[in-house]
Amino acid sequence: MTYTLLFICFGAVALGIIYIVHQFVRMKKQPVKDAKVIELQGYIKEGAMTFLRREYSIIVLFVIGLGILIATFLGAEPDAGLFAGSAIATAVSFIIGAVFAMCGGFIGMRAGVLANGPTAQAAKDKGMAAALKIAFSGGSISGLTLASIGLFGLTGLILFFTHVIYGTDQISLVISVVTGFSLGASFVALFARVGGGIYTKIADVGADLVGKVEAGIPEDDPRNPAVLADNVGDNVGDIAGLGADLYESYVSSIIAAVSLGALIPVAAMGLGGSEEYSVIARVLFPMLVSAGGILASVIAAISVQLGGGKDPAKALQRGLQVAALLTSVITLILSFVLFEAYQIQAFLAVFFGIAVGVGVGLITEYYTSDKYKHIQYVKKMSETGAATNIIGGFATGLFSAWPVALLMAIGIIAAALVGGDNNSMYFMALCSVGMLATLGMTVAIDSYGPISDNAGGLVEMSKMGDEVRAITDHLDAVGNTTAAIGKGFSVGSAAFTVVGLFATFVIRLRLLDGGAEILSHFTIYNPIVMAMALIGAGVPYLFSAFSIKSVGKAANEMVEEVRRQFRETPGLMEGEEGVKPDYKRCIDISTKAALRELVMPGLLAVIAPIAAGILFGFVGLAGLLLGTFVSGILLAFFMGNVGGVWDNAKKSFDPVKYKGTEIFNAAVIGDTVGDPLKDTAGPAIDILVKLMTILSVVFIPLFASIGDGMGLLGRFFF
Amino acid sequence: MTYTLLFICFGAVALGIIYIVHQFVRMKKQPVKDAKVIELQGYIKEGAMTFLRREYSIIVLFVIGLGILIATFLGAEPDAGLFAGSAIATAVSFIIGAVFAMCGGFIGMRAGVLANGPTAQAAKDKGMAAALKIAFSGGSISGLTLASIGLFGLTGLILFFTHVIYGTDQISLVISVVTGFSLGASFVALFARVGGGIYTKIADVGADLVGKVEAGIPEDDPRNPAVLADNVGDNVGDIAGLGADLYESYVSSIIAAVSLGALIPVAAMGLGGSEEYSVIARVLFPMLVSAGGILASVIAAISVQLGGGKDPAKALQRGLQVAALLTSVITLILSFVLFEAYQIQAFLAVFFGIAVGVGVGLITEYYTSDKYKHIQYVKKMSETGAATNIIGGFATGLFSAWPVALLMAIGIIAAALVGGDNNSMYFMALCSVGMLATLGMTVAIDSYGPISDNAGGLVEMSKMGDEVRAITDHLDAVGNTTAAIGKGFSVGSAAFTVVGLFATFVIRLRLLDGGAEILSHFTIYNPIVMAMALIGAGVPYLFSAFSIKSVGKAANEMVEEVRRQFRETPGLMEGEEGVKPDYKRCIDISTKAALRELVMPGLLAVIAPIAAGILFGFVGLAGLLLGTFVSGILLAFFMGNVGGVWDNAKKSFDPVKYKGTEIFNAAVIGDTVGDPLKDTAGPAIDILVKLMTILSVVFIPLFASIGDGMGLLGRFFF
Repeated sequence: MTYTLLFICFGAVALGIIYIVHQFVRMKKQPVKDAKVIELQGYIKEGAMTFLRREYSIIVLFVIGLGILIATFLGAEPDAGLFAGSAIATAVSFIIGAVFAMCGGFIGMRAGVLANGPTAQAAKDKGMAAALKIAFSGGSISGLTLASIGLFGLTGLILFFTHVIYGTDQISLVISVVTGFSLGASFVALFARVGGGIYTKIADVGADLVGKVEAGIPEDDPRNPAVLADNVGDNVGDIAGLGADLYESYVSSIIAAVSLGALIPVAAMGLGGSEEYSVIARVLFPMLVSAGGILASVIAAISVQLGGGKDPAKALQRGLQVAALLTSVITLILSFVLFEAYQIQAFLAVFFGIAVGVGVGLITEYYTSDKYKHIQYVKKMSETGAATNIIGGFATGLFSAWPVALLMAIGIIAAALVGGDNNSMYFMALCSVGMLATLGMTVAIDSYGPISDNAGGLVEMSKMGDEVRAITDHLDAVGNTTAAIGKGFSVGSAAFTVVGLFATFVIRLRLLDGGAEILSHFTIYNPIVMAMALIGAGVPYLFSAFSIKSVGKAANEMVEEVRRQFRETPGLMEGEEGVKPDYKRCIDISTKAALRELVMPGLLAVIAPIAAGILFGFVGLAGLLLGTFVSGILLAFFMGNVGGVWDNAKKSFDPVKYKGTEIFNAAVIGDTVGDPLKDTAGPAIDILVKLMTILSVVFIPLFASIGDGMGLLGRFFF
Repeated sequence: MTYTLLFICFGAVALGIIYIVHQFVRMKKQPVKDAKVIELQGYIKEGAMTFLRREYSIIVLFVIGLGILIATFLGAEPDAGLFAGSAIATAVSFIIGAVFAMCGGFIGMRAGVLANGPTAQAAKDKGMAAALKIAFSGGSISGLTLASIGLFGLTGLILFFTHVIYGTDQISLVISVVTGFSLGASFVALFARVGGGIYTKIADVGADLVGKVEAGIPEDDPRNPAVLADNVGDNVGDIAGLGADLYESYVSSIIAAVSLGALIPVAAMGLGGSEEYSVIARVLFPMLVSAGGILASVIAAISVQLGGGKDPAKALQRGLQVAALLTSVITLILSFVLFEAYQIQAFLAVFFGIAVGVGVGLITEYYTSDKYKHIQYVKKMSETGAATNIIGGFATGLFSAWPVALLMAIGIIAAALVGGDNNSMYFMALCSVGMLATLGMTVAIDSYGPISDNAGGLVEMSKMGDEVRAITDHLDAVGNTTAAIGKGFSVGSAAFTVVGLFATFVIRLRLLDGGAEILSHFTIYNPIVMAMALIGAGVPYLFSAFSIKSVGKAANEMVEEVRRQFRETPGLMEGEEGVKPDYKRCIDISTKAALRELVMPGLLAVIAPIAAGILFGFVGLAGLLLGTFVSGILLAFFMGNVGGVWDNAKKSFDPVKYKGTEIFNAAVIGDTVGDPLKDTAGPAIDILVKLMTILSVVFIPLFASIGDGMGLLGRFFF
């Protein structure tokens, strides 16, 4: 068995690309006849692409800066043992990782802004089944693009470095270098998620506060100047942002599993089978499982059809089930082919991950769907006003966080028990790979939502009529549920990924000169660990505070602009023929504000771990990471769910019957409060946790060079 | 030097008792002439005492149950080494600890319900200086009672066990047995805080929602049936609850320091000076510092006088400064008298604690006082409605959590650095002792607030006039600030206490047979630790969810009762002569609901650590504790502050000018949302964390007996 078997991954990538091209070609052929739709679609596309271009130019600056840091500081330490001199290669990996992630976001968003018009047209001409097909197809382009380029990049870099640069026996060095790829993805994900999240909420809150509340015009009314910015926001936040988030988990979880597979034997922690053979199998397994996931996702995507039941939710659910089942079967085969020992265990670890992914979705749905008692309770609490509505939703959000954490913990413990003490870290990482293997399908379903939402907006603005709107509304409602589940899934998968990355961090430390000494201080009762864990636990609070405050501030700018246009543009409010609002100006406000506000959270994510590492060395850094991890994951679950609770409590009131009543207004207030929590802060926290961890892994050589890994202050203590 | 020097502590206790009796006698002599005040005071007293009696009968049941568990299970393990056979003694300590804590709560509340009438009368007859004096005197009874009985109990038990039962050479066993005393305090504190917190918020929300909002009658109007329950709530929540919380930290922090002082030498971790001598000094030092704190508090309490400046806030501040300064001086003397080595270091550790206590107060004030920009920002956010008010307050609350965590971390690290690697734990515990040494004064100032609040209510209800009300309003406003600072202080001191208790937990494990093996798994990268930390981080979420939901549910009952009385009692609303509302019924609703709702959170706090210990042994338990600690402390800071932010943002609007405006209503909604967060859930989380940790310390012998300390499931892993 050799690493050349990785060429199999290229086969899966090729399959993914064939699927993507096929969908793109079909999509391009979809007729969009309505002139108004074509015009509006053009605005959305232009707005989204403008934002992406400007966002990327900021990211590029940061990437170049960090790339130089990596190339400069990571090769400085001669004692770094195995990893000395790999600085340039890591920097190259990092930049390639960032570029790939940006390409993935670009293609996904391109598909999104391409699919919304045809979806609207299909809803009018052919009905729900056709509209579902197109919207989902748009989402699946995003999903399979991310999975394909992720696997392509990793496979390509590993093969390049093993065969061209270092030779195959240097696999552990190669893996360390390739970790840079993951950092690149992480970096882009943070900006995409935070920037997109701020953008979409500025536009949303701005459009709602003036349009719906003050001016009393319906949602998606073309007279509202902020309405197109809102539609652009759906694309940049919910397609590009969520995609980048899950893509990052996908890449990082594979890297973690591959690293641990390669490094644990080097660190002499126990092996199954002959040593050489086992290392190769351990590296190949997660890669090939992911390749299998692409195959499964393509088949599942093709299988999504609106059957006789006419329920889009069921059709999507079935698609997910097909993907999960196929991946499980492929994993079972792979584990028996690749491993001499641990065959069933390897399968089980991946399977636990798939199962936890499904479980997280079910729990999220239980707490945030109006079919169950929790939303009914919040609904009832709305009767006594906004304060009780918010208290009730708050309590429900708090309730929902613990069960997910419990499920994640069970997953981690189960994988660790299967692996046994020595191999537990590798098996935990496999669990994470399993959860994310069906990335193509997961992202497809998540991206389907904003496309349907956009299509609904286009139907409304081009006045296609109530019947067509009913179809897109139905598709959109299903999208809201999948979006909530998608958020839970992304936090859950991030938690697993971080556990894997943290294990990688530890294993790499073990290989350093003096690593054993450093690790002997990694005890939970070390005062430095406890103190830094407290500080780390505060980082997600500070991070969310920045992003929530940003939305509040920038939404005010949007409100003033919309008010100004209504006031100063004659005939706009009356809907006179030929009078159009200045959409671009609103889009511009969102764009500028989002880009301005994402700098602080971005800096925090980078500075916190680097400062901790420099001041208190690996021990302090590990404490910080642990604190951020446990506090951040819970806060992310809470924020994501609490927003969904208020949102769905509001949606459970029929607007026709309740509009204008006290009880409905109370529910609307809760919904508005939840917006920045669920769409800006919550989903970004998990990226913060991931980015801080992967950054720590990559910067190990730097920290190793300061005070023997104990840091400027820490060395006085130990 | 011998342990008989502990008799000095009795001197301090005697001084405290003389002060208390003197204040009580003076208080009794204060004239209350107004018949209406006497009548209403009677109701409040009866309501408060009824609640306390019924709350205590529930606590007694739990205490007996847990006492039996302790006596049964803690002596079961013959391998428990040093601690075998101490089960009965621990159970006795536990029960005595609970009884003492209940007595402390009883006396404090008694003083509170005694002082409110005289305060109102003095405000009318003699003006602000006299009213301040009486209100503060009432609070100081509570504060010095708690400090005195805490120190008395600990000193008495240590002397009894060392001299009567085991002989002085068994000091480490004695300390372990005395830990039960701390568990007793912790147990009572949890129930007092949660029960009191739920009680006060049911009454508050109920009284406000119907009285102020629906019926449009002013606050504290005697026609409102829930108004007396609200006054009772101030006593049971803010005097008994807060006092029990800080008392618990006080006792636990002393126990932690004394335990570590006695046990670290046994565990052979390095000593200063000759061994025997040093152990005695280490045990005596924290006890005598606390005795010095009582002396300092008495002097400081006597010094509280309203000077020429006429600012009650300044008078109270000066009192705190006097107490802090005197305690520092006494500590400096003690450290030079008691220690051969480490003299300056021991002083510094205590001093850091005192400094951090002051710092936490300043940070809390900065974020929650309308003198600074944060409240001004939230005030501005209220202009666009309730949703933006809540978003702005939420962000501010999130911002405020990190700086406090950072300060705590700096304190921990500074103490640890002073101590050096081997002694860091003992010095961290000293830091905590320092922060709490001035308990008498801290509680006095915190309890002064609700007494003034009650006095204001009595003034309003007995129609003493606007001028008198202005005096009590001013005193009450100062009380609001001290209450916010007190909450921050109680969370901060709890964090320190937990660090000390956790260190005690670890040191006791070291003394077990096989303890070194167990501790070798206490690494932050152990999968069991990470998984259990995730679960632990979720526990405060679940705990707060229970308590917040309880308030929402029970407040609804109260609303319906108040509505019913207004509807069914003729002449009540019109204020007819001789028509009185049924106050007792509202008090009864609060009492029953609070007692019913405190069972679930109480069970959670007990079951979580015991289940973790039984299933995953010490390793899993330690992970759980760490997760609960870091997540809980941050959540507690956030909840406490965010409520204060909304509260003070509302208060910053002059009600005369703004009442009935949209902007004021928006601020009121924020204030109401914050109530259960800042007064029920937030302040109880820190007790949850403390209780779980001290419980784990006491139950070590039980967990040691299951799977060699690895637990039922954990033993399959290790």
